[in-house]
Amino acid sequence: MTTYLITGCSRGRGLGLAMLKHLSSKPSEQVGTIIATARQQTPALKKVVDGSAGRIVFVALDITDVTSTKKAAAEAEHILHGKGLDVLVNNAAIHSYSPNGIQEMDDLDNVLHVNIGGTHNVTRAFIPLLEKGKQKKIINISSTVGSFGMAERYAPLPYHGYKISKTGLNMLTYQYAHSFAEKGFTVVAISPGWLKTDLGGSIADLPPETGAEATLNIVFRVQKEDNGKFYNIHVPGWENHEGINAYAGEIVPW
Amino acid sequence: MTTYLITGCSRGRGLGLAMLKHLSSKPSEQVGTIIATARQQTPALKKVVDGSAGRIVFVALDITDVTSTKKAAAEAEHILHGKGLDVLVNNAAIHSYSPNGIQEMDDLDNVLHVNIGGTHNVTRAFIPLLEKGKQKKIINISSTVGSFGMAERYAPLPYHGYKISKTGLNMLTYQYAHSFAEKGFTVVAISPGWLKTDLGGSIADLPPETGAEATLNIVFRVQKEDNGKFYNIHVPGWENHEGINAYAGEIVPW
Repeated sequence: MTTYLITGCSRGRGLGLAMLKHLSSKPSEQVGTIIATARQQTPALKKVVDGSAGRIVFVALDITDVTSTKKAAAEAEHILHGKGLDVLVNNAAIHSYSPNGIQEMDDLDNVLHVNIGGTHNVTRAFIPLLEKGKQKKIINISSTVGSFGMAERYAPLPYHGYKISKTGLNMLTYQYAHSFAEKGFTVVAISPGWLKTDLGGSIADLPPETGAEATLNIVFRVQKEDNGKFYNIHVPGWENHEGINAYAGEIVPW
Repeated sequence: MTTYLITGCSRGRGLGLAMLKHLSSKPSEQVGTIIATARQQTPALKKVVDGSAGRIVFVALDITDVTSTKKAAAEAEHILHGKGLDVLVNNAAIHSYSPNGIQEMDDLDNVLHVNIGGTHNVTRAFIPLLEKGKQKKIINISSTVGSFGMAERYAPLPYHGYKISKTGLNMLTYQYAHSFAEKGFTVVAISPGWLKTDLGGSIADLPPETGAEATLNIVFRVQKEDNGKFYNIHVPGWENHEGINAYAGEIVPW
């Protein structure tokens, strides 16, 4: 009975909510308590929580507010009855789009603050609970657009701040992975693919549900030997997709 | 007669000041006006400016303040008599050190704000002047500790925030390089080595003067075909240094 906490679950058409739904469809011997966090419980999230027969519990958490992350960790400890947290999924993030060129980008500080700083705030607040957990997995939802190895392919995309934030998030992932390797942690970055979410837009490759299921398949699969790695999702039939992404469930170059 | 602007010139034992001194030792047919910036003109900087026979001009610039960067660009335009700026060296940066572990790091937001956001602020403010310049070089002073390719080697160093900021700076460099390639810009990241500056500490590999000269040798050398690359400095006799850095003047992996 693995316990989960997922940040960024507010949006009806978001990866967080789709992961909650998929997790709560698993047998309760496999998936235990699922903690869903967001700054506030939106109607879309409330509906999923209410329909989960108590398996999903909402906890308010603003990832940019250190006090809020500490308060949420204390609430989660209470909800889990001192059993610890097995898997933390840092999913909350914002987009950044500068169609008039990088020199017109006004939101760089904020996207770094939320996507890197926020992930750090949550991770550090939940380390004590994860240390008490069995699996000790920290999953950072990243993106291949933050990869240097794929940067040339993505160069025309005007998501400069978003790319930089995901590159920084990847290095944060690497630093946590190395810092907690000896304690048995598995810290990985996963690119969930280009999804038809509010962030990804309607012309994206895959529905959020497909991305959520494939992301969770990686979450289930990764073990200590995967610590400090960056994975793409695997979507059968899309392994050799020639568009913006490939979906082969393989290691993404940093 | 190439014109330069270097940020972060305040510290007596800093790379910025050492680069100023080295540049102003070159013949005036080679190096024209050198603009030295810092939040304020420290005694160490004033001494170098005063001793330069007018070749170095101080301009106040706080890289974290967008208004200040715009004001500095207007001043620089006046100083250069409408001729444009040839080379911008984004040298200003702060360190971050978390000896009690990454989970105790409290300054992540600030180091990202200064080292990535500040470099962006300066770069965007000076783009119009650089477009009027002949060389169109933007040099971002980075560090090999921000390299994923060398991350395992540097994993034990508790400079988590600094590493993440330099990784993000590298992606900022890449994004600017691609955005301005067609306009003939050369945007590169340079690792100046581990120097005995206030930031690097007294046990570092090389004196700031050696790092400054070797960094400027890369600045002089890079051309359009080097756009979007990341270089180490070349220090004769240190090419196969087996410590923390090698100094072969080669491309550093991102």
